[in-house]
Amino acid sequence: MSAPLERRYCAIVEYDGTDFLGFQYQAIGRTIQGEIETSIRKVAQTEVRISGAGRTDAGVHATGQVIAFNISWKHSLLDLQRALNAILPPDIAVLDLNIVDQDFHPRFSARSRSYCYKIINQLWPSALCHRYACHVRDTLDVAAMGQASRSLLGSHDFASFGKPTQGSSTIRNVMQAEWDVDGCLLKFSITANAFLYRMVRKIVGSLIQVGLGQIAADEVQQILEAQDLTRSAPAVPAHGLYLVQVSYADDG
Amino acid sequence: MSAPLERRYCAIVEYDGTDFLGFQYQAIGRTIQGEIETSIRKVAQTEVRISGAGRTDAGVHATGQVIAFNISWKHSLLDLQRALNAILPPDIAVLDLNIVDQDFHPRFSARSRSYCYKIINQLWPSALCHRYACHVRDTLDVAAMGQASRSLLGSHDFASFGKPTQGSSTIRNVMQAEWDVDGCLLKFSITANAFLYRMVRKIVGSLIQVGLGQIAADEVQQILEAQDLTRSAPAVPAHGLYLVQVSYADDG
Repeated sequence: MSAPLERRYCAIVEYDGTDFLGFQYQAIGRTIQGEIETSIRKVAQTEVRISGAGRTDAGVHATGQVIAFNISWKHSLLDLQRALNAILPPDIAVLDLNIVDQDFHPRFSARSRSYCYKIINQLWPSALCHRYACHVRDTLDVAAMGQASRSLLGSHDFASFGKPTQGSSTIRNVMQAEWDVDGCLLKFSITANAFLYRMVRKIVGSLIQVGLGQIAADEVQQILEAQDLTRSAPAVPAHGLYLVQVSYADDG
Repeated sequence: MSAPLERRYCAIVEYDGTDFLGFQYQAIGRTIQGEIETSIRKVAQTEVRISGAGRTDAGVHATGQVIAFNISWKHSLLDLQRALNAILPPDIAVLDLNIVDQDFHPRFSARSRSYCYKIINQLWPSALCHRYACHVRDTLDVAAMGQASRSLLGSHDFASFGKPTQGSSTIRNVMQAEWDVDGCLLKFSITANAFLYRMVRKIVGSLIQVGLGQIAADEVQQILEAQDLTRSAPAVPAHGLYLVQVSYADDG
């Protein structure tokens, strides 16, 4: 009997980032990558290195992180997904699993990424949301925040909102930037071809300044045009941020 | 200047029960009562003992637990609420605070209690819901569960679903017992004058058996009529349960 063929697997992963140092492996401390690699190693009895679509920071959550890895596995896809979910800690789950081409890379093959940022906008903190949404006690003007968000749409130099993690260009193409309101829960959804480091959290920081009336809605466009990192607000806390979806060419 | 008068305060409290041994104070270990009493003691500089409407078990959450306590406080109600929320751990929050009559007792003055139980009904576990909803992987027949729930309505002897925590009567009056569906999230809402120990979790256990087709919908009524604790299903896990509201005579 011959050894099973090594194949490349792609998984959609959900995680609660609260109790992790972030996605990327670190020699000491709990990381998403480290936990997933340990679980695959136990299940498939082989050394493995995973690649992720986005290296989310400590505290950042994901409902649609995409990872890929090569292993030999002689049972079914469903058996592999079941085995991984059985062995993974409860704050990581594999939502989908497929076999992909060897040249597929979760980050380099991606066409766009979608993030959301959740804010709980009420006088008092929420004990049940404190891991999953950023608390803002003063009432936010969501209409003004929506208006300011529209100036981000399209292809712009986003140097005011972040540093590139690789390469030197700070030009990004934002396809979606909008707010939804559900009671006291506000959700900002943003999609772009790619993001600069901390770009979503710095954008949300400036949009909250708009919502609090600290700056005018049209000032966000001026910050954008300034191409100056010192002009935008500090990044908002990580625990409101979610990597929601990564899209690829064949997603249609 | 005379010392401020001691008054009785009533608070509505939200908590994430995950990291607590339960509501009731224990000499060793983290409890809701213990954390709240410590916070009041620090803020009001006085010994204090709180009473709660319901002694929720370890892991059970609350969005509407009611507590009462007597302290002397010379500043405003809002100042007291702000000080408590500033000092409480992030998994407990005081949502509302009022001065009440000295004879008000959160448990003995209560007319009814409402709980809900959340189930995430999907093939794979959810990393972001694992603290807040019970995972059931096989598809539940919610219509059948709704039908079975209706047999609980009204005044019945619920001896099949729990033991009394005090007194000997097992008769309770259920005013609401219904299921809501929001995607793969199922929510059971139940209101009664009072509940037996583990009654909600044992009822949900039997309703899940109905939803899985393990017992017929009308069998829940037979279990109820049997007045035999061994006939109902085991209690479902605590982490799906929420104390939602406690109602009093003057709530209208």
